[in-house]
Amino acid sequence: MRGLTADYQLTLPAILRRAESHFGYREIVTRLPDKSFHRYTYADMVRRTKKLAVALGGLGLEKSDRVATLAWNSYQHLEAYFGIPCSGVVLHTINPRLSPDDLAYIFDHAEDKILLIDETMLQLLDSFKDEVNLEHIFVISSDGSVPDSAPDGLESYEDLLESADESEFEYPDFDENDAAAMCYTSGTTGRPKGVTYSHRCICLHSMAAATPDMLGLRERDTVMPVVPMFHVNAWGLPFTAAMTGARQVMPGPHLDPESLLENLAQERVTVTAGVPTIFFGILRKLDEDPDAYDLSNLHDMIIGGSAAPESMIRAFKERHDLNVLHAWGMTETTPLGTVCNLTSEKEELSEDEKYQVRATQGVPGPFIEVRARGDEGFAAWDGESMGELEVRGPWVTGAYYKDEDPDKFTDDGWFKTGDIASISPGGYVEIQDRTKDLIKSGGEWISSVTLENDLMAHDAVAEAAVIAIPSEKWQERPLGVVVLEDGKDVTEEDLMSHLAEKHPKWSLPDAIEFVDEIPRTAAGKFLKRALREQFKDYTPTA
Amino acid sequence: MRGLTADYQLTLPAILRRAESHFGYREIVTRLPDKSFHRYTYADMVRRTKKLAVALGGLGLEKSDRVATLAWNSYQHLEAYFGIPCSGVVLHTINPRLSPDDLAYIFDHAEDKILLIDETMLQLLDSFKDEVNLEHIFVISSDGSVPDSAPDGLESYEDLLESADESEFEYPDFDENDAAAMCYTSGTTGRPKGVTYSHRCICLHSMAAATPDMLGLRERDTVMPVVPMFHVNAWGLPFTAAMTGARQVMPGPHLDPESLLENLAQERVTVTAGVPTIFFGILRKLDEDPDAYDLSNLHDMIIGGSAAPESMIRAFKERHDLNVLHAWGMTETTPLGTVCNLTSEKEELSEDEKYQVRATQGVPGPFIEVRARGDEGFAAWDGESMGELEVRGPWVTGAYYKDEDPDKFTDDGWFKTGDIASISPGGYVEIQDRTKDLIKSGGEWISSVTLENDLMAHDAVAEAAVIAIPSEKWQERPLGVVVLEDGKDVTEEDLMSHLAEKHPKWSLPDAIEFVDEIPRTAAGKFLKRALREQFKDYTPTA
Repeated sequence: MRGLTADYQLTLPAILRRAESHFGYREIVTRLPDKSFHRYTYADMVRRTKKLAVALGGLGLEKSDRVATLAWNSYQHLEAYFGIPCSGVVLHTINPRLSPDDLAYIFDHAEDKILLIDETMLQLLDSFKDEVNLEHIFVISSDGSVPDSAPDGLESYEDLLESADESEFEYPDFDENDAAAMCYTSGTTGRPKGVTYSHRCICLHSMAAATPDMLGLRERDTVMPVVPMFHVNAWGLPFTAAMTGARQVMPGPHLDPESLLENLAQERVTVTAGVPTIFFGILRKLDEDPDAYDLSNLHDMIIGGSAAPESMIRAFKERHDLNVLHAWGMTETTPLGTVCNLTSEKEELSEDEKYQVRATQGVPGPFIEVRARGDEGFAAWDGESMGELEVRGPWVTGAYYKDEDPDKFTDDGWFKTGDIASISPGGYVEIQDRTKDLIKSGGEWISSVTLENDLMAHDAVAEAAVIAIPSEKWQERPLGVVVLEDGKDVTEEDLMSHLAEKHPKWSLPDAIEFVDEIPRTAAGKFLKRALREQFKDYTPTA
Repeated sequence: MRGLTADYQLTLPAILRRAESHFGYREIVTRLPDKSFHRYTYADMVRRTKKLAVALGGLGLEKSDRVATLAWNSYQHLEAYFGIPCSGVVLHTINPRLSPDDLAYIFDHAEDKILLIDETMLQLLDSFKDEVNLEHIFVISSDGSVPDSAPDGLESYEDLLESADESEFEYPDFDENDAAAMCYTSGTTGRPKGVTYSHRCICLHSMAAATPDMLGLRERDTVMPVVPMFHVNAWGLPFTAAMTGARQVMPGPHLDPESLLENLAQERVTVTAGVPTIFFGILRKLDEDPDAYDLSNLHDMIIGGSAAPESMIRAFKERHDLNVLHAWGMTETTPLGTVCNLTSEKEELSEDEKYQVRATQGVPGPFIEVRARGDEGFAAWDGESMGELEVRGPWVTGAYYKDEDPDKFTDDGWFKTGDIASISPGGYVEIQDRTKDLIKSGGEWISSVTLENDLMAHDAVAEAAVIAIPSEKWQERPLGVVVLEDGKDVTEEDLMSHLAEKHPKWSLPDAIEFVDEIPRTAAGKFLKRALREQFKDYTPTA
């Protein structure tokens, strides 16, 4: 016997229709390249999105062909987020920070037919244009024209819209399992791998993200995704915001702390989201001038992408009364997996203990399941036992595009994240390390992340990475690599005693090296592979 | 191209597993028949639920067989909510307030194989037991035994659990479209009709219900469903609470205002839900003794089932600082369709205007779509044009059980609610009437609900119903039927002038009749059919 529920499909056209029917009055604000503000409403967005879908329909694409974007967060990119999937083809967001080589690889691998590109990213084209096979390239620009400096053959995004009549748009009926979007991982090893998102997966992710123990988004919120729309759907925020009717503020190409703080204050943003690097900058700026910005509307700063150190979470709260919501996810999980809202049993904890909990990755969203696979079966949920985090759920990918790297998926439907985690009673996940960054010393595991966080908790430390260096005796040993705060100084010995307050002696780094900067991936994460290469023959001088 | 999302099914076993993994410490409180409190945790609930599922598995049932419950809100009923669907059969909750004739009809129609029944409802058995064909009847009782007074052949629910070993339970993999539950409508005309709920539909309803612009439920909430668990899944609250980890307080058979207020205060309930009748009683009690109960934790009282008059919403807020969340749904919509949270554009309204908005049924949840079909096409969303409300979405039924009354479903996938509604800009739905209760006077439609609400806004009026009486000249004319507040008095003329402040003369009732009580359906709604019968030959005396 079946449940006789209507055969209603969870699709992006349904979200677009909801935005049109209910939230036409709600505003979408974009910071343009010249730093002025562009404002329009969801009603305008829907009208132009329909034009885009109709126009794409006239370009001879076939169902599920890929249309790529290389663009900052903007209203036009939002139009692409809905217009491309609502015309039956697949939105393929591309990370402009990848190497030209990886960019060409991705275009080729995804077989993109069309590209929408920001005028501010045109210089990227030179490096890979001859390698790829695109039928059309449309330029998104503030004045609607193709800049004179652009290569020949480029077309205008505004002209594309202009060519179409939105009244020709009919809401399509897709199977919810059809692909709506795709994104490539920006892995630190090997080639990027493609992850495809079904309409269903994005819709379920949007509903779950809106629940109060995940992000708690609603119509009266104003959401500013700082996390780029080329990076795992900007954590799904543009979709969740459209579903809930939340106002959206798009920072455009301006990701410097000053511009972001101006947006947060002037536009009375209630929820923002980005990687720790962005918030390090914001924190520094606020510390310099604590009264310059009225952030009284801002109730949550969602930090993910890599771990937010406890010291940062504490600093925002204690010095600026700002709440950090720690989140974890991956390209393969659409991306939200866990969010760290404190559950009721944590109410009794001391403030210090609460900060410790807030620095974990938190509890899985509804229908997301986690387990940690250790060397001997699954790790107990005791907050200490470690294993490789495995995850499953309705918005967790079941395979990479073109079936690459099938070993990342278990036979019983779980995705192997490559993260080493412990899980506490109640199900709080704490990422201890990437599998490949874990330091295996004399049969014990040392978490580089924990050491990094505790190094960064020191006043004089701006950034810290801990990597494994080869050791004949122990197999591997930790090495600390530290960037100092401007104008501050500290000795290796001081940092060692600082760490020794919390860590057993055998797990302390063999040495600390001071550097000017730590190399990063295109997604802003530490590129430890490069550090390991740099220090592979390292011998402590002490 | 498909989105390569893992083939994860949305099922009740996934919710049960989540409650077990994450919320084992959280409490479930039940008011027992003797008014004492029973307390245990989700961990206990899951253990006993597994026993129930294993025990049911040993009774020779086949997949999708129906297991019925006749029970108040209690921890045992919660065990049935999960244990029955998690053993692969269908939870069929039955309304004990139905007539013996309808009860026998429903058992027969649903072909129930097993019944779980509360000891407090055993007397119901006499009236229909010989008409039905049940293989087992298990009695839920406080001391675990079958009362001596019970008919022969009844078995003990506790013995059933005792017979099973929870370690034999394995989480099953169901197709999310398999039936999990069913419930019959308590229609005011014709036989009850069966609605079946798939696992998917309950899971999606649970996620949507938790979003902040619907009910906004989270782990730190304590939820008390006063709406009975035999009534459309207690509006899904037991499922949503288990998914979010919210604490649950079950009032058992004690639905009197005093017991409910004791529960709300002592158990620090944050969210409760029920029909207007329940809240009329609570309001009266609070008015009598405003300081007797500390309700400072209670942030939302969800009222649905029938319309909450604006006067009640206002009285709770102004006199007791309590927030009413008005909701609308039907058995056919699992049931949540719309909830009235004020969207940002309503912020500018005056307090009076806000109350007017709060008295509407509110905005559809995510993926729920509404339209109002008038005599000439669909009604404009102008807040005035009326039509029959049609609804579709992933938890709206697509057919009745055994395909009865197929005319209620349109060819393009919408359910015809039988409610007459207007829809405002922004999509606020206002139910004006049931189709059959609408008064058609000289080509104009008169809403009985609006007149009723305005009558009930009068100090001296406890309850009011407005029905159509036949008129040769106008086809139909309205008649008001009023129950006075204890100890208060008012004349027909006074009530007419009161109504004339808001309503045009032609739409005023031809007369007002004073009665001692208004007949109600098993679900507590006005039984207008009976009133129309009573007054069918009515001629105004004035």
